[in-house]
Amino acid sequence: MNQKFKNGTIMLGAKPSIITTSAIGGQKEGDGPLGKYFDYICTDGKFGQGTWEKAETEFQKEAFHFALDKGDFTETNIDYIFSGDLLNQCTASAFAHRSSNTSYVGLYGACSTFVEGLALSALFINGGYAKYTATCVSSHFCAAERQYRYPMEYGGQRTPTAQWTVTAAGCLVMGENMPNFPSITAVTLGNIVDAGVKDANNMGAAMAPAAFDTLDKIFTDTNTKPSDYDLIVTGDLGTVGRNLLCDLFMMEQNIDISPNLIDCGAEIYSIDTQDVHAGASGAGCSAAVFCGYIVNEIRRGRWKKVLFAGTGALLSPLSTQQGETIPSICHAVCIG
Amino acid sequence: MNQKFKNGTIMLGAKPSIITTSAIGGQKEGDGPLGKYFDYICTDGKFGQGTWEKAETEFQKEAFHFALDKGDFTETNIDYIFSGDLLNQCTASAFAHRSSNTSYVGLYGACSTFVEGLALSALFINGGYAKYTATCVSSHFCAAERQYRYPMEYGGQRTPTAQWTVTAAGCLVMGENMPNFPSITAVTLGNIVDAGVKDANNMGAAMAPAAFDTLDKIFTDTNTKPSDYDLIVTGDLGTVGRNLLCDLFMMEQNIDISPNLIDCGAEIYSIDTQDVHAGASGAGCSAAVFCGYIVNEIRRGRWKKVLFAGTGALLSPLSTQQGETIPSICHAVCIG
Repeated sequence: MNQKFKNGTIMLGAKPSIITTSAIGGQKEGDGPLGKYFDYICTDGKFGQGTWEKAETEFQKEAFHFALDKGDFTETNIDYIFSGDLLNQCTASAFAHRSSNTSYVGLYGACSTFVEGLALSALFINGGYAKYTATCVSSHFCAAERQYRYPMEYGGQRTPTAQWTVTAAGCLVMGENMPNFPSITAVTLGNIVDAGVKDANNMGAAMAPAAFDTLDKIFTDTNTKPSDYDLIVTGDLGTVGRNLLCDLFMMEQNIDISPNLIDCGAEIYSIDTQDVHAGASGAGCSAAVFCGYIVNEIRRGRWKKVLFAGTGALLSPLSTQQGETIPSICHAVCIG
Repeated sequence: MNQKFKNGTIMLGAKPSIITTSAIGGQKEGDGPLGKYFDYICTDGKFGQGTWEKAETEFQKEAFHFALDKGDFTETNIDYIFSGDLLNQCTASAFAHRSSNTSYVGLYGACSTFVEGLALSALFINGGYAKYTATCVSSHFCAAERQYRYPMEYGGQRTPTAQWTVTAAGCLVMGENMPNFPSITAVTLGNIVDAGVKDANNMGAAMAPAAFDTLDKIFTDTNTKPSDYDLIVTGDLGTVGRNLLCDLFMMEQNIDISPNLIDCGAEIYSIDTQDVHAGASGAGCSAAVFCGYIVNEIRRGRWKKVLFAGTGALLSPLSTQQGETIPSICHAVCIG
């Protein structure tokens, strides 16, 4: 039996399971501390294609097929693909899935897209609308850099609060509940929070209040506190945003959330040695870190009850040029 | 009891109802044959804002609040907002809803976004996840033109197959089944179809095969034929795409679908006198035509059983520059 709470958290009666996952990364992601968790590291940033945008399509396509292969699935087993990316008009996703004969649900939630897809997948399976779904999300450093900031050739300087867009894709196949598989017990689709931050090079600061808002709602709805979870994973606040989220919980509720909080953007690279400033971002970051690192460690028994909260900064280069603030969002799913 | 068919059509046991709708248009939309169906015509293309992008946000915000007011709702009654638009990173939608304390689900389906939102809304309400949802979608001619094609000042020539992006927004509030209200009986989320069309000025040709694919699936799944419906509404194929869809049904199945087929892009303007070439497009087109014209005529009893199929061309200016084809999609909902 489902249960819906005041602030929007839905407890899922059917507890859909994470059946299989895949993570594909680029060279820099492979060189990072989570390199061993990737299914495949593509050392060619163009993935054999002529452009970075086409390469991102390949990353996502490969992630999808790796996940299918690992689960002994074919495309015909998948009822719905939930997909999105950061490219204008989400073309990496559309082109990656243009030859699949599977219902396609296009999403845009910036770096929250992967969790948005997981939440919808869980609701679809829980509601009996699907037996299996695939959530597939990507980003590419060079494609994002030239779309959001400067041409690569320009070699623009990055500020200390800037995050490095990952070149990666993740795919998660969800299905009906299977005993001993990690399962989704609850989902919370968040609302947009705009804290008035205008600095497009400090998205962590813009997104931290959205993460606080959604996490606070979940704790209230389910009458839990941060220490009730083995792990709280945000993605992608980076180091600056992660610290701000800790400060918000300390200031507002006198709770120290830091002991069991990690952020995908702060984990995927060695902050000290890989020159990424405030860490990582990009829709592919939380997708790959969750599908590679987190799910595998859950399977190994390291963590049992995990809260996965994906944050997104809903700005565009044009909105920044027009002097706008950065509306942000955070969606979450609870595992175990 | 729900029923799911082989090709993806889901018959909804709970038959969610269309509670209230709103449509806001610009001057050109108000001058067209459907002008009287709009709740509000804004003669100022900038809606009192400094830029066209900010104006589009106002169009969508106003559509949302008109719909709430018409249904005697406040924002707190709405459990989920499903929203999207054509601007890069879907900023018109994010900015329109940044101050609502309502769960926000960001979508990208190009001109199919409105029907994608209706399908998800119906599945959410049918699944007991929501009591009321709002689906809110917009587009703006000048904002789209300068993003997809040329700066407005350039005065670029348009080809005969080009469609005119509407300046409009539509919002539909859906809720649990209410007797005597138009209700959603089935949804079909389509898959991506890429017929190899490369001409970004002929999106009707790119999208018609996707419309054929999804409509064919529905007819097969539900064992119906086009003449079983009082009306089949596509959006937005324009005149060229609409004719191609008729040709496809005639060639493939020897069925004349034309007698009860209309296309939102072919209806909103006077093709002969408003200089729109092959008709209209834009995510706001099917949203406003459905919320204004179609729903009001259903309420008046003119049509009972209506199939509403929204088509989207999932290209970007960059994918066209890189020589890519145009992947397209079509989602559908059945009313009555």
